Amino acid sequence: MAKKEKPKLRIIPLGGLGEIGKNMTVLEYGDDMIVIDCGLSFPDEDMLGIDLVIPDMTYLEENFDRLRGFVITHGHEDHIGAMPFALQKFSCPVFGSRFTLALIEHKLEEHRVKNADLRCVCAGDAVELGCFRVEFIKVSHSIAGALAVAVTTPVGVVIHTGDFKVDYTPIDNEPIDISRFAYYGSRGVLALMMDSTNAELPGCTPSERELGRTFENVFDSASGRVIVATFASNVYRIQQIADVAVRHGRVLCFQGRSMVMITGIARDQGILNIPEDAIVDIEQLRKYRDDEVCVFTTGSQGESMSGLFRMANANHKLNIGKGDTVVISATAIPGNEKAVGKVINQLFQRGASVVYDRLADVHVSGHARREELKLMMRVIKPKFFIPVHGEARHLYHHARLATSLGIREQNVFVLDTGSVLELSARSGKVAGAVTSGFVMVDGSGVGDIGSAVLRERRQLSTDGIFVAVISIDRSTGRLTAEPELFTRGFVYEKDSDELLNEVRGIARELSLAFEYADRSEWAGIKAAVKSGIKGCLMRRTGRQPVIHPVFIETE
Amino acid sequence: MAKKEKPKLRIIPLGGLGEIGKNMTVLEYGDDMIVIDCGLSFPDEDMLGIDLVIPDMTYLEENFDRLRGFVITHGHEDHIGAMPFALQKFSCPVFGSRFTLALIEHKLEEHRVKNADLRCVCAGDAVELGCFRVEFIKVSHSIAGALAVAVTTPVGVVIHTGDFKVDYTPIDNEPIDISRFAYYGSRGVLALMMDSTNAELPGCTPSERELGRTFENVFDSASGRVIVATFASNVYRIQQIADVAVRHGRVLCFQGRSMVMITGIARDQGILNIPEDAIVDIEQLRKYRDDEVCVFTTGSQGESMSGLFRMANANHKLNIGKGDTVVISATAIPGNEKAVGKVINQLFQRGASVVYDRLADVHVSGHARREELKLMMRVIKPKFFIPVHGEARHLYHHARLATSLGIREQNVFVLDTGSVLELSARSGKVAGAVTSGFVMVDGSGVGDIGSAVLRERRQLSTDGIFVAVISIDRSTGRLTAEPELFTRGFVYEKDSDELLNEVRGIARELSLAFEYADRSEWAGIKAAVKSGIKGCLMRRTGRQPVIHPVFIETE
Repeated sequence: MAKKEKPKLRIIPLGGLGEIGKNMTVLEYGDDMIVIDCGLSFPDEDMLGIDLVIPDMTYLEENFDRLRGFVITHGHEDHIGAMPFALQKFSCPVFGSRFTLALIEHKLEEHRVKNADLRCVCAGDAVELGCFRVEFIKVSHSIAGALAVAVTTPVGVVIHTGDFKVDYTPIDNEPIDISRFAYYGSRGVLALMMDSTNAELPGCTPSERELGRTFENVFDSASGRVIVATFASNVYRIQQIADVAVRHGRVLCFQGRSMVMITGIARDQGILNIPEDAIVDIEQLRKYRDDEVCVFTTGSQGESMSGLFRMANANHKLNIGKGDTVVISATAIPGNEKAVGKVINQLFQRGASVVYDRLADVHVSGHARREELKLMMRVIKPKFFIPVHGEARHLYHHARLATSLGIREQNVFVLDTGSVLELSARSGKVAGAVTSGFVMVDGSGVGDIGSAVLRERRQLSTDGIFVAVISIDRSTGRLTAEPELFTRGFVYEKDSDELLNEVRGIARELSLAFEYADRSEWAGIKAAVKSGIKGCLMRRTGRQPVIHPVFIETE
Repeated sequence: MAKKEKPKLRIIPLGGLGEIGKNMTVLEYGDDMIVIDCGLSFPDEDMLGIDLVIPDMTYLEENFDRLRGFVITHGHEDHIGAMPFALQKFSCPVFGSRFTLALIEHKLEEHRVKNADLRCVCAGDAVELGCFRVEFIKVSHSIAGALAVAVTTPVGVVIHTGDFKVDYTPIDNEPIDISRFAYYGSRGVLALMMDSTNAELPGCTPSERELGRTFENVFDSASGRVIVATFASNVYRIQQIADVAVRHGRVLCFQGRSMVMITGIARDQGILNIPEDAIVDIEQLRKYRDDEVCVFTTGSQGESMSGLFRMANANHKLNIGKGDTVVISATAIPGNEKAVGKVINQLFQRGASVVYDRLADVHVSGHARREELKLMMRVIKPKFFIPVHGEARHLYHHARLATSLGIREQNVFVLDTGSVLELSARSGKVAGAVTSGFVMVDGSGVGDIGSAVLRERRQLSTDGIFVAVISIDRSTGRLTAEPELFTRGFVYEKDSDELLNEVRGIARELSLAFEYADRSEWAGIKAAVKSGIKGCLMRRTGRQPVIHPVFIETE
């Protein structure tokens, strides 16, 4: 019976649900599987020392023979960041816009991943991947080359918006292709997966172009240099500010590794249009008066060692000071608020004038708010709705929005990472789950750090470590040397002679027992030494470092 | 010449400038000194393991014989938190409102500080402290019992607002005493020190009462329990919500240590008025239907182990789930955004309905915005203006606001912590600085942790520690035991046999040199062992743990 049943479409998010980050969604039907996006997320504050986090790809590894390709909606880290790790394991084609692929290519070079099969697509293109036909649809977002996908499957059309907003007046004059979404909507869409990032917020996200007035004002009134910190990949933002700057007779200088790299790519691709002679090197800046200069830099999130951070901390060729106007054209991503605040304070302390989101309209989001989401639901008219790209609260509000527009409650699926949603043309249900989760990358190690090591790092970070090395003659049980103590991150040793002497005394005294005890009792003595040290440290300092006594038994 | 000069008034902030936190200001004239506020701040994210931060009080210690008293404006941590540390050193009277003193008293008990001389004052009272006459003036703020001070000194009146807002419709019907500020203003004020927290924000902070409608709506529509998380010390907020809850036929239950403690004090003092029979114990809740229950709890900042956190994580007698409505009546303090977001997500995941600041008016600030600041400047008309309580950007904007209202630029002083501002009736100037800064408290240690230990903690937290114990016979230089290795926070040791064996081999091999070397060469060999281990770990893992080889020389 089960044998004759027609296969169902299975939608399996491997990341990006219950979180904003590491987006990855599997679509599979029969022997074919495609993956939409392949992103990373940045470590939580409790993932000490971790460099980045990628989706657990076990399920892909188990099914690599069915994998027909990766389809990438755009080039932000949470959509492409895990690409090098995936392509080290899987060799299959990767589809994306020209700009997206250039960013992936750069990433692959950094990770020394070779021979990737990157295939460039444009809005309106369609590719066949097994039984899937994937069409790319232009959307507006805070990066160039963002595409949604309409996937025609044997059971119906699935639309995945990627990240998007509805911008009728985008800087590149190529607005989101509402008509194409409507075309699919009028022919019937099985399921819609839509960006939930701003699903809590009423109204519409303003157009990128709305910021123009602010930038005009800034350049009209700035009498010294203007330094702009923004996201390097927001080519439209950079285009807009660059146009104003050039019109105000300023030359442009790009600073910061990713700013230089990405604007270089964008100019090569003709997405960013700046006259050749308007761009100068940092060394040439001295030839210009301050009011003839505009600098673009990274660091809008307050990242230490970014361009802006170093300029604000007198650690850059181009130090910011009195007379400079700094525009932070961004908003702090949750978790970065304090770092951004610190940079702003440093800039004020150096005498600069700073324009930031509390004071002026210097940033708009790249994500659709509720009215835009409603528009999409109304034109796409999906049977099933799956909110994606959001934390629990965003998914919840997005799901409620869908039911408020008449999508039946049982057809709205708030999924978890790893959930398997099975869809036929008529019905849908969650049918189990696959291996999923997150994998931490630390140095060259991928997935070798687990919760035990993180717990140790947390304890070390709080109170440090206290080590006592005790050498015993194996045959006599006598101490062969004074207990050797050292600490890290616990106390300043040079000021702690008294404490260390007390502990050394305790360790010595308790270790005398070895000499008179049977070997079978040694484990108990060792435990007593540890707890003796622990008690003393707690009593004297109120702290609980990691305590590690090492017993060296010499012959 | 200098001998005959009349002394000047010296204003010395020891905290609260360039930061929001640990407020403390010294006023001194001749042989008399008073201190306004004595607060703590919470550690920055890079102060690993530190419990709290207090002002460096060296200057007070050096001048304790001149110290006439502490004057405390209100009972928030950033105004009273360092009180126990100060009163361990100085015995002098402490003045504050009844509610403020009750909070200080509780704090002193926790720190087992006895025999404090706490003296209760009311708005309108004045006390003589040496040559200073200090009058207390009622202000509105997000805590009961907040007072500003007008200090009459030999050279003129100095007004310090403490934290405040202008609320014409406060819950206790006792609005800020604008008339008294105006009285001083009309007689001439030498200097104004004013709260800068909201100096960036236009308009006025809404009245506490404005929130009433939101709470009415919440209780009108809630069909299950209502759980409210807010600041325990915001007695007005609690009063307002409790009134609505009782009117809706609900009993009240207080949860969370500080919520229980502070509402207890407030009820004892008659500041919080709730009918006795409306308050029930958590054990009694089962007697009531869900729609007859309202719970107040701590945890509005997402603090782990707070009431709300535990209720959201199924770790509390009162677990939140489907049908419950949770109101987070607060806004995230910078740095807490992610923690608050996590709790909200957990609540949604547990099926609760959550009302928070993105969705409804559930919180108003306790600090004055620009229009209120202007009002104060206009009625107080100070000669000198000193913005306080703010980071650099707040102080900057506040200073500009003052000059825009006609205060002369040279009479506006943006001070640093430790700066000495000398004022005569006619002139003011910054005259040097005193010892100042911050002191970190960790466990029972006050000030014993410095940047070196923090640096170690940071390195430990990132990559852990790797220890190799190598025992050598002192006379022969021969190894007396196999090198003993252990790690913490570096790798999961059980999965790392191969790596550990490789390092052990390297350590053993390099240590063979001891046998054939002159003792004078041993230091070099030790360095070689360390760098051999380091190189291997870096090559194999890309990580840089703290590496500590211990050489035990046995007889």
